[in-house]
Amino acid sequence: MLENYSGATRIYPIVGDPIAQVKSPGRLTGAFAAAGHDAIVVPFQIAPAEIDEFLRVLDFARNVDGMLATVPHKFAAYRHAASASERARLLGSANVLRRASDGGWHADMLDGVAMVRAIEAAGMSIRGRRSLLLGAGGAGSAIGLELLNAGVAQLAIHDTSRERRDALRKTLAAVHRGKVAPGTADPTGFDLIVNATPAGMGGGEESPALRDKLAASMSVADVITVPEITPLLHAARAKGCRIVTGVGMHDASLQLMVDFFMGAR
Amino acid sequence: MLENYSGATRIYPIVGDPIAQVKSPGRLTGAFAAAGHDAIVVPFQIAPAEIDEFLRVLDFARNVDGMLATVPHKFAAYRHAASASERARLLGSANVLRRASDGGWHADMLDGVAMVRAIEAAGMSIRGRRSLLLGAGGAGSAIGLELLNAGVAQLAIHDTSRERRDALRKTLAAVHRGKVAPGTADPTGFDLIVNATPAGMGGGEESPALRDKLAASMSVADVITVPEITPLLHAARAKGCRIVTGVGMHDASLQLMVDFFMGAR
Repeated sequence: MLENYSGATRIYPIVGDPIAQVKSPGRLTGAFAAAGHDAIVVPFQIAPAEIDEFLRVLDFARNVDGMLATVPHKFAAYRHAASASERARLLGSANVLRRASDGGWHADMLDGVAMVRAIEAAGMSIRGRRSLLLGAGGAGSAIGLELLNAGVAQLAIHDTSRERRDALRKTLAAVHRGKVAPGTADPTGFDLIVNATPAGMGGGEESPALRDKLAASMSVADVITVPEITPLLHAARAKGCRIVTGVGMHDASLQLMVDFFMGAR
Repeated sequence: MLENYSGATRIYPIVGDPIAQVKSPGRLTGAFAAAGHDAIVVPFQIAPAEIDEFLRVLDFARNVDGMLATVPHKFAAYRHAASASERARLLGSANVLRRASDGGWHADMLDGVAMVRAIEAAGMSIRGRRSLLLGAGGAGSAIGLELLNAGVAQLAIHDTSRERRDALRKTLAAVHRGKVAPGTADPTGFDLIVNATPAGMGGGEESPALRDKLAASMSVADVITVPEITPLLHAARAKGCRIVTGVGMHDASLQLMVDFFMGAR
């Protein structure tokens, strides 16, 4: 990739703290090249205290057409935008911003829809299913909203922080009344389970209760990319469940990002 | 190049206005890779009114180890530095900044020494020669200083702006007393002629008097990279002069930049 990389290449900063772990610089740059777009995604490690000023100054860079935000800057990215998709507004966070024709930034939050696309790409249905969401943080919030938008019959939310769980319940219930409920780590009675917690990252452990009660009728998805097969997914596969990995979600996210940035050119 | 490009890649912004014409993003990034440094040079087009703030905010980016400045931002880059080489201080301009261990920026101005290295690489001597410099702008100023530092017996300066010519004469005479004089476009009596004006860029014309009076004993150098063989160099070669092209200067500059940025790591 980047054979023609030059001063004319368009620039897409990605901000995070830390930043060394992100895969988007290489992968999204490659996807841009495959789509015929001479552009490069450039990582910047910016501390939370300085992110608002950093984003504001990027306005000045006339060869910057878009930017991406990862943890912990998705809320700052949303604040920086002049306009936003409905889902970004509801969540108050954004992972992509593109420059609008008036020079302002338009925001979207693609994490949730990426998981929905990955589930669909794996041949699983979403409409009418009873879903259990584990984790009500940034990724979990976005995924919960998009599962509801995609037509799940029910969304139960589990989080070790009851305050965070109830905040997300309230946000989602406001637009999907009657479909959102509190959940536990017990998957019994659900047929679509999505882990959006860091548990399982680097080979860590989820709740044993969760894994013990999996059944072959359930579909299980995980946001974690390393390892691709988390202990949860390993157990799910052993039980005969269909699975979706964080890598599958990341693949779907890349295509959504290309569409978001290039659709407006 | 950039096979391993990732969130861990170190970032070197280059600022200019315009920026699309610069070759450093591709070439210096390739030179970093050849030196085993996982780093990328990223172009940013920033207007003069906004450059000081843009540079200041780059301080926040913890994965930015250095930056480069091209026209018209070499003076702003110098102003932004906490410390600088003697030649950058004398000229009040810089084309490279690297982050020092205390977090501040250290500046250098490599344009002049790049031309000196290119002349030496072409097998020509500099010490004791009578040199004529055409153009007292940013590049010309840096080249004039380094020709003197490298030991020319005499430096005559020609510029269509007498004010600019005399300003450079005064600056250089302060450190190389008795060696700096005003010049014209007539090369008679000189044995090293360096063009540092935009004349000849895109096939434009220098003074016909200059070309008519070239002689085989003269060495002729040009800062222009496109075309590589300018009308001046074409005429010089026809007269049997030895020549140095802007591409040769740019090649020397790349190696100096790698040394500047990596020497301090």
